[in-house]
Formats: sequence, structure tokens, C-alpha cells
Amino acid sequence: MPSGRPAEVATPQPGDPALARLSLNQKTTDRWSVAEAVDGCVRAGLPAIGLWREPVQAIGAGAAARLVADAGLRVSSLCRGGFLTAVDPAARRRALDDNRRAIEETAEVGAACLVMVVGGLPEGSRDLAGARERAADGIADLVPHAAQHGVRLALEPMHPIFCADRGVLSTLGQSLDLAERFPAEHVGVVVDTYHVWWDPDVLGQIQRARGRIASFQVCDWITPLPPDALLSRGMMGDGHIDFRLLRRAVEQAGYTGDIEVEIFNADVWAADPDAVVATMARRHLAHVLGD
Amino acid sequence: MPSGRPAEVATPQPGDPALARLSLNQKTTDRWSVAEAVDGCVRAGLPAIGLWREPVQAIGAGAAARLVADAGLRVSSLCRGGFLTAVDPAARRRALDDNRRAIEETAEVGAACLVMVVGGLPEGSRDLAGARERAADGIADLVPHAAQHGVRLALEPMHPIFCADRGVLSTLGQSLDLAERFPAEHVGVVVDTYHVWWDPDVLGQIQRARGRIASFQVCDWITPLPPDALLSRGMMGDGHIDFRLLRRAVEQAGYTGDIEVEIFNADVWAADPDAVVATMARRHLAHVLGD
Repeated sequence: MPSGRPAEVATPQPGDPALARLSLNQKTTDRWSVAEAVDGCVRAGLPAIGLWREPVQAIGAGAAARLVADAGLRVSSLCRGGFLTAVDPAARRRALDDNRRAIEETAEVGAACLVMVVGGLPEGSRDLAGARERAADGIADLVPHAAQHGVRLALEPMHPIFCADRGVLSTLGQSLDLAERFPAEHVGVVVDTYHVWWDPDVLGQIQRARGRIASFQVCDWITPLPPDALLSRGMMGDGHIDFRLLRRAVEQAGYTGDIEVEIFNADVWAADPDAVVATMARRHLAHVLGD
Repeated sequence: MPSGRPAEVATPQPGDPALARLSLNQKTTDRWSVAEAVDGCVRAGLPAIGLWREPVQAIGAGAAARLVADAGLRVSSLCRGGFLTAVDPAARRRALDDNRRAIEETAEVGAACLVMVVGGLPEGSRDLAGARERAADGIADLVPHAAQHGVRLALEPMHPIFCADRGVLSTLGQSLDLAERFPAEHVGVVVDTYHVWWDPDVLGQIQRARGRIASFQVCDWITPLPPDALLSRGMMGDGHIDFRLLRRAVEQAGYTGDIEVEIFNADVWAADPDAVVATMARRHLAHVLGD
């Protein structure tokens, strides 16, 4: 059941207040390198970018930091740490080491937070409660390193479609239960519309998240779901989510940070990245901003 | 990430206590008519069947009732009513009329409950709260008819993957919030492992559901998710769900009714239905029963 036609507006140009908090998550223009994505943000007048570790590592965190600084961009997030649910001690140690490096990269690029996708069930395991405990233990292990580097971990509740294989944090409430064990400056949460829109308690939990919202990400839930569930995210306006409702809620909860557009979608990735950024800016104005 | 190999045991034969509460939901053997499914249950020694309206209507509810009665089977549920979220008054009236017929069919076949899938967002709508309200209003409209016919409506929380296009009741807690507005003998809930297994609060909500559990359905969450999400249900043991945990929880909450196997899956539908029923009985013994 496709939703109604997306509203269309003229593309906001550089300097337009509609762009003041709009951030391009690098995954939305997956084929662009850090340098290309930074240039793309500058061309389009976007003030912020969300980086991914792999393209950052391809040039080194120091070089990435210089690129964004020279362009005058904020780094709204670095994606991603996590995957902390392994049972095997050696695998767990590797995961923690890798997360410590991610924390250092987050500090080096000056990102507002490190997005944490905590991981799914280990191969062959059906012990969901155990996986959730290990994820919580892993966060506890990492907080001191994050604090030492001035980095904020951002726990991302994942849509339950990913509970088995990607993220056992399934709701914002559950993520806050975990985040609240730690100081808010070291552990916050991500509110990603795609992951939380269905939750009957989402508005109450966003309100509860005051002071903990480290990142607000937007993309749409589209139907029919594409064959690869991982690529089922849609451009705002192409699906079923009421973005204004959720944006107003995070703002009422005190969030004033960037609004990051993160879309995993084969059609979006096949399109010209500059056109994707322009569409994103129009849809942001038409579907996310305003009353 | 596929889970571990399913445990295998010998197929329980008719009279085996392992089959005492096992019910075949007709959708699991989708190509069988009511008569064929009833015969299949008898051959395999199953004491109960879950019927669907379309095959029942193909022969008439009276004829279906006689078939199951002559075979000595219980009818653990009739699937399904619901789809109550339309905004258009005429569409809403049609939905309510159809649900009243479904209630009458439930009484006629003597099913333990009528499974209610409340419906998704209407075409083009992003008003999730509104859809949830209309679903609740529709249930309220139907309760008197259900009471008059001695039928129990069973509200089915649907996995959030179906929130947009199928069912805006997304959690057991939300379903109980609605069910508790009405007498327990008229409105209960379905606990379907596939829909609820991911919920961090599922055990607490199952405990809360004491006296309200109208149906317990089992099938597995498999990964990778098949291309058609609607057909992504797996045979018990093929996926990630801890069935014993959830079965013990519903039993501790006082549920002593049938355990219905409902699987939408292209591979299962392509297999010989008698073999599917035998596999189902083995997997029930190996993965659902026991401590």
C-alpha cells in the first residue's frame, strides 16, 4: 500500500534557513568518498555531515577531520560502533578493541556522537535476554574510554525487523533504560524515525529522553518492503511516517541538533548523488520542517 | 545469519501425549481444503485445527462445522476478522458488516476465538494514532455482537514490520490496553511467537495477560528475511525464537488451550502437506514442549 504522493517544493538554496540543521548521512550517497560527500554538502548548502567509519578509514581520520573542518561542516555523527553480543571471549575482546578505535576516530573527526548498533543474536543462539545483557555489559566496558576521549555513545534502538541479526535494542524505552545507567554526556540515544515510528509509546519515550537525544535521524518506512529488508528505507515523503510529529517531539524534548538523513535504498544509491541531496533538501522542507 | 540446526526427533504418532494440544492452522497447509485439512489432522493424530474464513466459506460454515465435529476435532481459532481502520464511512460500514458475519461464522464452526488483525494505515494516510483509535472504536462496535453469539474476539498484536500495511496493534501491551476495556470472555489476545518474540517486555505482558490469552500461535523468525516479508515465517527450529520460554510463560499465565502452528512460507506451501504436518509435530516436540 503506497502512501500519498510526496509534497514537492522548490529546492532550498545555500543560505536558506530550511537547511540550517540538515545533515547528509554519508550512507545516503553511498558511492561518494568523504571528500566527495563534503563537496556535495557544500554545493548544496548543508551545514553538517554524518560520516561512516569505512570511508573515513580509507583516508584516515585526521585527513577526514581536515576535510570537514576546511569546509566548515559540523559532523553530526560517526557510524558506527557496537556489535557487542558475541559470546566467544576472543570475539568479544576484538569487538571491544574495535569500539575503542571507533571512539578515538569519533574524537578525531569531532563527531557529535558515535552511533552504537549493539548487535544481534550470535550464530545459532536463541538467547535474546543473554544477548541484551552482553550488549549492556559491553556499553559499560566502553563508557570510561568514551569519557576519556570526550565522546558520547549514542545507543540506537533498531526496528524489531533487525532484532535477530543486527540490533537487540528494539525500543527507545529499552535504550533509555540502558543509557540512564550512565552520565548523559557519555551515553545518549538515537531517535531514528524509521526504527521507532511504529512504537505506541514513542512520544512518551521521546519526552523521557530529554537530555539524552544525541542524534535525530530521518528516513521513511516504505511499502511494499523491498526484497532486501536492509535496503528498505525510503526518502521522506515516499512512505508512511509522520515526520513533523516526531520532529516536534524531539524538539519539545530539548533537542536542537542536526537532522540527519540516512537512507539505505538501492534506488537512492543508483541515482546521481547531487540529485539525491537536492531531493533530500526539498523533502526535508516539505515533510520534516514546519508545524 | 541462520540459527543452529533444528533438533530432530521421531515423528509423534496418533495418541502420543506430545500431540495433545497441537493444532494445525489451515494456512500452514495452504493448498488443503477444510475437508483435506481435517483428514490430515486425523491422519497425524492432531486434536485441533485453526480454520480460515475463505476455505470455510467455500463449503459453508455449517458444512465446515460438521466436518470438524464428525472428525472429533476442536477448532482452536477462526482467522480472521479486523481491518477496521478505514476512514471512509462506507468502507468502515462494510468492514463492520463483514466482521459481524465473521463472528457468526466463528459461532457456527465452534471456534475458540475469532482472530482480529486490526488493519494498517489507510492509503495515503500517515495518521497512525488515528488508525489506532479507529481500530479501538471498531472493536467496541463489535463486542456486543460477539457477546450475543458467545464469541471471543482475539486481538492479535502484529510484528512492527506490518504496522503500516496490516496491523497497527504492534505490541502485546498495547493489545491488552485495548482488550481490558471489555470483559475477558468477549475480548482476549493472541500471543503469536513470530509477532512478539522481540519485545523486551514480552514476559511481563504475557503475565499481565492472565485470563486474556485466547490463542497461542507458534512459528519462527527466520533470517535472512525472505523477499516477500509476508511469507517470512519459518518452521519452529529454523530460526531464532526460544519457543519453550514463551510457551512456559503463557502456561504460567494460566493458558491451557491449543498450540496452533501458523506458517506463511512459500517453501512450506510447496511441500507435501502431510510431510509438513509431520515436521510440525516433530518440531513441536523438539522445540516447543519440554522444560
